[in-house]
Amino acid sequence: MSDVWVVGVGMTPFAKHDASAEELVAAAVDEALRDCGLEPADVDAVVVGTAFAGPGAGQHLFRDSSFAGHPLVNVENACASSTAALLEATAWVGAGLARIVLAVGVEKLTGRVQGLLPVADDDPYGAQGLTLPALYALKARFHMERYGTRAEHFALVAVKNRRHAVDNPRARFQTPVGLDEVLASRPIAEPLTLLQCCPNSDGASAAVVAADPLGGKRAVKVLGSALGSGLRRAEIGWEEPTLRRVAARAYARAGITPAAVDVAEVHDAFTPGELLAYERLGFSEEGQGGSDLEAGRFHLGGPRPLVNPGGGLLARGHPPGATGLAQVHEIVTQLRGEAGARQTDTARIGITATMGGNVPQLETNACVVHVFAAQ
Amino acid sequence: MSDVWVVGVGMTPFAKHDASAEELVAAAVDEALRDCGLEPADVDAVVVGTAFAGPGAGQHLFRDSSFAGHPLVNVENACASSTAALLEATAWVGAGLARIVLAVGVEKLTGRVQGLLPVADDDPYGAQGLTLPALYALKARFHMERYGTRAEHFALVAVKNRRHAVDNPRARFQTPVGLDEVLASRPIAEPLTLLQCCPNSDGASAAVVAADPLGGKRAVKVLGSALGSGLRRAEIGWEEPTLRRVAARAYARAGITPAAVDVAEVHDAFTPGELLAYERLGFSEEGQGGSDLEAGRFHLGGPRPLVNPGGGLLARGHPPGATGLAQVHEIVTQLRGEAGARQTDTARIGITATMGGNVPQLETNACVVHVFAAQ
Repeated sequence: MSDVWVVGVGMTPFAKHDASAEELVAAAVDEALRDCGLEPADVDAVVVGTAFAGPGAGQHLFRDSSFAGHPLVNVENACASSTAALLEATAWVGAGLARIVLAVGVEKLTGRVQGLLPVADDDPYGAQGLTLPALYALKARFHMERYGTRAEHFALVAVKNRRHAVDNPRARFQTPVGLDEVLASRPIAEPLTLLQCCPNSDGASAAVVAADPLGGKRAVKVLGSALGSGLRRAEIGWEEPTLRRVAARAYARAGITPAAVDVAEVHDAFTPGELLAYERLGFSEEGQGGSDLEAGRFHLGGPRPLVNPGGGLLARGHPPGATGLAQVHEIVTQLRGEAGARQTDTARIGITATMGGNVPQLETNACVVHVFAAQ
Repeated sequence: MSDVWVVGVGMTPFAKHDASAEELVAAAVDEALRDCGLEPADVDAVVVGTAFAGPGAGQHLFRDSSFAGHPLVNVENACASSTAALLEATAWVGAGLARIVLAVGVEKLTGRVQGLLPVADDDPYGAQGLTLPALYALKARFHMERYGTRAEHFALVAVKNRRHAVDNPRARFQTPVGLDEVLASRPIAEPLTLLQCCPNSDGASAAVVAADPLGGKRAVKVLGSALGSGLRRAEIGWEEPTLRRVAARAYARAGITPAAVDVAEVHDAFTPGELLAYERLGFSEEGQGGSDLEAGRFHLGGPRPLVNPGGGLLARGHPPGATGLAQVHEIVTQLRGEAGARQTDTARIGITATMGGNVPQLETNACVVHVFAAQ
């Protein structure tokens, strides 16, 4: 594939927003274009990632904007929708169909969903209570049984990510929480407590992808990407986990090993998701994710890799369609050395790992891994 | 872009089906794979196009199949969803992200929608009656006022396409209709009558896209493709029409002119759509679409190009997400010389032109044009 670069990024704060989806998208896109000095007319095509915005989402969002009339495709891969949109954007650029593509992620969720994402009528597992937090709790219990991981290990993920988000002005929660507070918060699905579950949020995110760095020193190269789906039982642990398989392919395409990764944004929709990601992304040995975390391995200022410097889904908030490109926003910011108080001192290679699995499709999910490199 | 080939196609008949969407997809995919002698394991990635199947559509459709676990992206571009999916598949192959990609289109509509597609709450035009047939009626009136086109010209589109579909065993309507019968059918939006409106239908369609012909003489080359969105007012006629702009780009990428086109499948959701397509695709001079049709220009056995030999949306039926790849199915079949009684005798270059514009987004639409060549 030809070289592909992320030349600009933008995102709204993630929050309960009064602003409409159109307004959120306009803000994120405007920032991404300003970030690389481009105008809407410079963009050849738009790929919109959203999980719940419904048919015609992108055309609707842009109907009154400068992008009305642009080639536009809507992509839906549950919570990985906008990292999937980025992958489609890189494919357009890599195939020579476009020189500059805008990838957008958006979700306006808080007015529509309270608490759990709804269970579909035809989802036999959800109907029996196997909702997303219950599924992650099963993964946690499996890990505890097999490796001796303790409830505290999962809670530490929330403590770390809330601490990181104190320095992220776009995060929904910018206050730290202590381990006792996390463990004492309302039980959701044992061992998970409320503060170990990401908050439904509203927001938009955007990235501009181009066939060259456009002369900018701040452009970040897409070294390799991969997408995969998986079976639910794989995620619980009886089969080769989807994330391991997809990450291996992305690493191979990028020509790197996990040891090269300086900074990662991973899918901590619920705390076990991040702890398992340490192992499946090759940062920790199998079963050692909890103890590595406890030893301070993934904290800002700790040994590499730094994980979820932006606060993750737990602290930044989770508007499903916008999350993937928010992860990309953080990695690009880190690789540029522009992350301010949450900047890691070594940041040459960064990755995003997004998991999408919505309730009607518990048996499958979508996993997207991107590997980025600083110039 | 690297060469991209369509090596296999499959589709279900379009009808009111009792079969589930999963069963329809399985049948279309199985036929497409058998068509090129491949197995599910040979497929590197899947792109699913559907307009109304909702979040996680593809993962849900394939959860119990051999494709569970494959990389999969859902694409939504209204009635152009599956020709957009084909475009994404060609981008994956063209970018080197995959060697063999399966594009799928599907819709299970008849149990859910009766008559008009529903008008969205936030669609001010639909709320005032500017539904899709009314929009097409406006286009027809504009053409009648400006060029002297008569109501009969539009009705002739239905007569021609119903006649073509007599020889298409996959078409929903395989009986011919006469001009008087079309004109005398129930008025919908003047000048459109019921037989000038495509029937909501169920169905699935699939195409296998590859980086080379896989040694097969029946593989068809993708010469060039383009996607665009447009404003509603452009479609009514006051601006450069979206289809003309997108087709010009596809022709340029393919290195052809409209005169090279032997056979075309175009979007006759309502009869004015096809008549306008003659002009916007460059087959007729501006304003001459009706008289060219009346002269027999686009009929089987007439002068080139043959238009909608498969019966179009009017006779084949219209399951929105599946329509695009059904158009591709027909063109590939024609270019292979395998169309039987509806085979045109000159078929070296064929195109598909799909228009997607759903009710909530009347102001914009998605238009996809592909140009294919026989070996």
